[in-house]
Amino acid sequence: MASDLDTQSFLASPQLKPREGDLFNIDAALTEEERAVRDSVRAFVDEKVLPIIGQCYVDGRFPKELIAEMGANGYLGANLPEEYGCAGLSNVMYGLINQELERGDSGIRSFASVQGSLVMYPIYAFGSEEQKKHYLPKMAKGEIIGCFGLTEPDYGSNPAGMITRAKEQKDGSWILNGAKMWITNGSTAQVAIVWAKTEDNDDSGKSIRGFIVPTSTKGFKANGQKGKLSLRASDTSELVFDNVHLPADAILPKSGGLKSPLMCLTQARYGISWGALGAAIACYEEALAYSKERVMFGRPIGGFQIQQVRLADMLTEIVKGQLVSLHLGRMKDAGTFTPQQVSFAKRNNVNIATDIAREARRLLGGNGIVAEYASMRHMANLESVYTYEGTHDIHSLILGQAVTGMNAFGG
Amino acid sequence: MASDLDTQSFLASPQLKPREGDLFNIDAALTEEERAVRDSVRAFVDEKVLPIIGQCYVDGRFPKELIAEMGANGYLGANLPEEYGCAGLSNVMYGLINQELERGDSGIRSFASVQGSLVMYPIYAFGSEEQKKHYLPKMAKGEIIGCFGLTEPDYGSNPAGMITRAKEQKDGSWILNGAKMWITNGSTAQVAIVWAKTEDNDDSGKSIRGFIVPTSTKGFKANGQKGKLSLRASDTSELVFDNVHLPADAILPKSGGLKSPLMCLTQARYGISWGALGAAIACYEEALAYSKERVMFGRPIGGFQIQQVRLADMLTEIVKGQLVSLHLGRMKDAGTFTPQQVSFAKRNNVNIATDIAREARRLLGGNGIVAEYASMRHMANLESVYTYEGTHDIHSLILGQAVTGMNAFGG
Amino acid sequence: MASDLDTQSFLASPQLKPREGDLFNIDAALTEEERAVRDSVRAFVDEKVLPIIGQCYVDGRFPKELIAEMGANGYLGANLPEEYGCAGLSNVMYGLINQELERGDSGIRSFASVQGSLVMYPIYAFGSEEQKKHYLPKMAKGEIIGCFGLTEPDYGSNPAGMITRAKEQKDGSWILNGAKMWITNGSTAQVAIVWAKTEDNDDSGKSIRGFIVPTSTKGFKANGQKGKLSLRASDTSELVFDNVHLPADAILPKSGGLKSPLMCLTQARYGISWGALGAAIACYEEALAYSKERVMFGRPIGGFQIQQVRLADMLTEIVKGQLVSLHLGRMKDAGTFTPQQVSFAKRNNVNIATDIAREARRLLGGNGIVAEYASMRHMANLESVYTYEGTHDIHSLILGQAVTGMNAFGG
Amino acid sequence: MASDLDTQSFLASPQLKPREGDLFNIDAALTEEERAVRDSVRAFVDEKVLPIIGQCYVDGRFPKELIAEMGANGYLGANLPEEYGCAGLSNVMYGLINQELERGDSGIRSFASVQGSLVMYPIYAFGSEEQKKHYLPKMAKGEIIGCFGLTEPDYGSNPAGMITRAKEQKDGSWILNGAKMWITNGSTAQVAIVWAKTEDNDDSGKSIRGFIVPTSTKGFKANGQKGKLSLRASDTSELVFDNVHLPADAILPKSGGLKSPLMCLTQARYGISWGALGAAIACYEEALAYSKERVMFGRPIGGFQIQQVRLADMLTEIVKGQLVSLHLGRMKDAGTFTPQQVSFAKRNNVNIATDIAREARRLLGGNGIVAEYASMRHMANLESVYTYEGTHDIHSLILGQAVTGMNAFGG
Repeated sequence: MASDLDTQSFLASPQLKPREGDLFNIDAALTEEERAVRDSVRAFVDEKVLPIIGQCYVDGRFPKELIAEMGANGYLGANLPEEYGCAGLSNVMYGLINQELERGDSGIRSFASVQGSLVMYPIYAFGSEEQKKHYLPKMAKGEIIGCFGLTEPDYGSNPAGMITRAKEQKDGSWILNGAKMWITNGSTAQVAIVWAKTEDNDDSGKSIRGFIVPTSTKGFKANGQKGKLSLRASDTSELVFDNVHLPADAILPKSGGLKSPLMCLTQARYGISWGALGAAIACYEEALAYSKERVMFGRPIGGFQIQQVRLADMLTEIVKGQLVSLHLGRMKDAGTFTPQQVSFAKRNNVNIATDIAREARRLLGGNGIVAEYASMRHMANLESVYTYEGTHDIHSLILGQAVTGMNAFGG
Repeated sequence: MASDLDTQSFLASPQLKPREGDLFNIDAALTEEERAVRDSVRAFVDEKVLPIIGQCYVDGRFPKELIAEMGANGYLGANLPEEYGCAGLSNVMYGLINQELERGDSGIRSFASVQGSLVMYPIYAFGSEEQKKHYLPKMAKGEIIGCFGLTEPDYGSNPAGMITRAKEQKDGSWILNGAKMWITNGSTAQVAIVWAKTEDNDDSGKSIRGFIVPTSTKGFKANGQKGKLSLRASDTSELVFDNVHLPADAILPKSGGLKSPLMCLTQARYGISWGALGAAIACYEEALAYSKERVMFGRPIGGFQIQQVRLADMLTEIVKGQLVSLHLGRMKDAGTFTPQQVSFAKRNNVNIATDIAREARRLLGGNGIVAEYASMRHMANLESVYTYEGTHDIHSLILGQAVTGMNAFGG
Repeated sequence: MASDLDTQSFLASPQLKPREGDLFNIDAALTEEERAVRDSVRAFVDEKVLPIIGQCYVDGRFPKELIAEMGANGYLGANLPEEYGCAGLSNVMYGLINQELERGDSGIRSFASVQGSLVMYPIYAFGSEEQKKHYLPKMAKGEIIGCFGLTEPDYGSNPAGMITRAKEQKDGSWILNGAKMWITNGSTAQVAIVWAKTEDNDDSGKSIRGFIVPTSTKGFKANGQKGKLSLRASDTSELVFDNVHLPADAILPKSGGLKSPLMCLTQARYGISWGALGAAIACYEEALAYSKERVMFGRPIGGFQIQQVRLADMLTEIVKGQLVSLHLGRMKDAGTFTPQQVSFAKRNNVNIATDIAREARRLLGGNGIVAEYASMRHMANLESVYTYEGTHDIHSLILGQAVTGMNAFGG
Repeated sequence: MASDLDTQSFLASPQLKPREGDLFNIDAALTEEERAVRDSVRAFVDEKVLPIIGQCYVDGRFPKELIAEMGANGYLGANLPEEYGCAGLSNVMYGLINQELERGDSGIRSFASVQGSLVMYPIYAFGSEEQKKHYLPKMAKGEIIGCFGLTEPDYGSNPAGMITRAKEQKDGSWILNGAKMWITNGSTAQVAIVWAKTEDNDDSGKSIRGFIVPTSTKGFKANGQKGKLSLRASDTSELVFDNVHLPADAILPKSGGLKSPLMCLTQARYGISWGALGAAIACYEEALAYSKERVMFGRPIGGFQIQQVRLADMLTEIVKGQLVSLHLGRMKDAGTFTPQQVSFAKRNNVNIATDIAREARRLLGGNGIVAEYASMRHMANLESVYTYEGTHDIHSLILGQAVTGMNAFGG
């Protein structure tokens, strides 16, 4: 009965033996090509990101100097088609890129997530052929940077309540008024994808449409957020639209209703689920290496039971998160994945990453509070990641609704 | 570059849409044949186990009346070859059988684990051709029941220290003396696989050999454990060997050193990692169903945020455990899995199952303490599972050693 | 400025040095008389309860043979006045009695809680002078046992919804119909305090009144709960009232509205907050003693870091719970305590006790699942305690309402 | 029997009703004078610290401008005697000062802890009368600032291994060589208390003595720590001693062995146990206020069950921590407290504060990552507090040793 099965394991690399550092042999679930993509991004991060990112973080500066190479390497919109100048990679490969970039810093991955999933994706999914041809190749190269304006100060977890309005003029052009908050790349971008209601009385969000707004347009203003204690190597800004005039063709023609930006968030959250693992891996690897070197009471602290439990718990959660993201990626590549599954993965993986970063920092002792080590930087970054793109609590209620059939968002 | 990948997802059933109750679409990772095996065991448990198991548990009785059908259905030693009368299933299928049996009760799965992984497996792996031909077909049918005698009262986590001795006589026969504890099936079995040191001065356990001991042999005594508050539907006994004479061919010829029984434990732990998920699933499904029916303050309690968070957390851990066991099973089928990976899976899956059972019981309120509902029975059972086959702490230190290279068992 | 303070520490026994086993010197916060009360109950439990309670639990039997001595020792209604035959102890002393009784078993403490706080207290607080004089002295001696009928099958956390009705007849007598569930002492009691609505249309519970119902009255039936996996050494029953006729003077004249039974619950919960600590202390002490004796890998396991962390965490939560109950008791004795403070203490102390019992059981390894050891019995019992007298979740929402001013019971 | 007790509650203010925000009426355990001290420090922090501390933190600057007022208010060495120019307050009052200062920022409290417990205390306890008279009054006023040099780069948790040496010269003077790390106030101080071994071959630390070292002495160098992601409003420095010549009277004459600096740490840890509560209170109060104002889905988020559970859990841990510190303070005032009790309180209170800060930050959503709100600043600070003055793990093992009698520091 089982004869066929004996020859087929559904592992991508069934005969691969576990390499050191990959106790549960996650690599066996990846193809050789997937591992190659991951390793090349890993090398980029080791060579270009890690040497500078600690100081960028301390200085509160996003390292724009990396953009060109990220573009040249195909990291921006990597899962979009080659015909628009993108790398045309699978979603699993796209996920692995996110993982490795966030192993560098959540700010680097956030930059790529916004550019790829929140700017290039909506142009690809909701844009006209002209818009796609004009923007996507340049965005893939990093020549045009974009940002995504959905969240508003009082409607973080409830975008249907947004206040920003785009009013259609008699000539088909638009006037945009309102404000957006917590906008990654906001001060760096040449172009913003702005979501606005197009009707006055719209509580449900059904009149929401997306617009491509050059940030040089009169009335558009971006203000960098001051005093951040997280994602300090990322550009987070507030956007203000004061009677911003937009031509008729600024609209994304196929966008319609709140569903459109939510589709973008699903794309971005998918990438975040991978990215958070990268941050967790960075912390775990730092802690593990430290535990082998740091001597206390005459022994490396990695030989003490307390630290072994700590490391075993970290590793366990990373491995499980990797299996979650990989299964999700396989389903995304198969075309069957659901937004609730993405909520599941984002919620879990970011949550465990916050715990891992904290425990890694603690294992590092006093050294764990300086930017020379990565764990506390990741610990601080991940608090933003925990909150953005659907807070942990919101995803709990999305899952709760999915399994019980009952809506508990309003209490 | 990614063209080939687009056509291949490494999911067993890539196009399968998630069915209700399978939010993360674990089924897509299974073949149709695997799902069929699982569903048939599930049906057996629904029809034969669930109607009686609560009362068996209250009465402290293992339901022997189920053995014949379990044998006939191929659940015993299911991953051993057909040439010895076994089902010859893959390790993933074997795992799914364990999952479904423990959805019934940990005692049912323990019975099958011992019979298959701790009795049939060592005969298969270390036995002579005669031993295999004599025992395995009858054991597969449940006509001969076995037990596994390794653990001793003072050496639960340190079997190398065992006291039981088999002394070779001049004629090649053996005399066995000692005692074993916490022996599942001990009073039910016709045959015991007993592990004993064959040399007097052996601290490391290198002289340990396995013996096939008919329980009717003079000097062999089994005493059922009294006062159990866990695994009450399982036979747990103490074995005493008082000058038990064994013929020369009682020995398992290929056994040698502590490594042999540890290989058996690796097999059993593999099955436990799946089984614990079954207990967790039983609890989650019971709690979910209850949350939809139980009305408080005018609403089903499943509509309250507190219960939605509880359910989302349960589901999350079950899904991750399933991915862990499935990945492990695929590696076992590919022949690359390691004992440390089994420790990883046993430790995690049992641990999360204990939490899920407790939270399910709590969601059930007052009803959660009676045997009419399953969650508290599982909660109590899982404490045994947490402790046996390597305690949680021991597996922490196995993982700690694997990643740091340092041994911390002795502190 | 601080001269006066130097001479006053507000400790009851400021100069007391910490005794072994009392690391944080909780005894210094107790008077000599309080410690004497505690020690005498402790001796009673050691001598009379512990030798039999494991077997009672296995057998599912409440040890009625202990009642007379508990009465003679003044443990029943101990904080009620001497003029009604009670011990007239302070609330702190009453709490210490509860702590020590539950160190024996939650079922023993539940018996005393029901008798004292849920039967004698309402007679004392809402009864006529005749009722007090008739019942309280006999109840204090344990000659009359009572139970408390408030909870109904579908209104566990929402007693205002109760269905049980007492209908006043023209002659002032009453006819009682309905059913109650999860009634401690229900089959043991000679007298039940039953809460019923006296008006047909009453959603809020304002017509609720209390009645003294002899269990021998025609139409009164008590059915012992079958299949309990918790509180097995306690009598838990269902009560059914089928046209139970009660004389006019069966009513508790000063009772009125849901507030009356809730006042009783506040009394009982106060005692539970102490009792749960007793269960936790039993588990901690058992685990600590075991850790010093149990040798593994050549050392007592108490010398391993993993077990030291486990013990330190247990101790920490016990100490904090003791300070909570003691502060609450001092406030109760001062007459200032609030029901929300009782919710605080019940919720915390039971919750930490469930964790401590589980960790103790785990430290005990395989021995931790048999009734010869106490930890798993306590672990199972505490699940009932977690649920009854206001579930953990309900108390969370009581506290949430207290601090935010917003009601979230209905979601 | 209980008549006397009825009149005595051992609460400092037994009749006090709970004020809003003090659900468990901790105030009732304080005297009026204690509450007055606390309230005055609270006002100082509200008026002088909170308006500037967020910016100080972002800028990485300790606000030296506050020192004079802290001195004038008696916050420095507040529990030392009035005869040396100190406030002569009780240890409970001293604790309350620490609590309120850390409600501002851990860096402010660290400054005061070092000055009072690690500089003034050793001069008071181990110094000559001349040293006390010279230093203490000026230090109490903040005219001379001190730091405490014990920790070395490779001996964070094991000070007995220190390398720094003080070599006595023939004329009785000393030459100091070595380095110290993680020194609070290191670059701010005019005087350092430096601990050094005075014998070459000393593994146990028995030759350790303390020295008063003016930071202007030739060969003394302090380097501010760069890249801190925690305690950014505090001065943390490395000290280097390169042939620092000290006069004979630089030594603290009564210091002797490792015990002396450990006594200082006990003093400081006592204050930290209170201080961490202040940070936790700041976070809880910020989160609670935010939950009442922040509207989502049409309701203040404080009305949602998820947030109510979060707030109830925070409050619970704060209250328990307050009772711990208060009981410890009463024992310190009574002269009976032990270093293990201080470990207990430091370990618990800092640990719960880190959780509370994180949960508060999460409740604040996106706003929780900016320095305009306090929670994330406290969350980051508390990681240092978790690590310094005995890491959490070290205190676990101190408690483990205290209860089991076995030393597990070395594994």
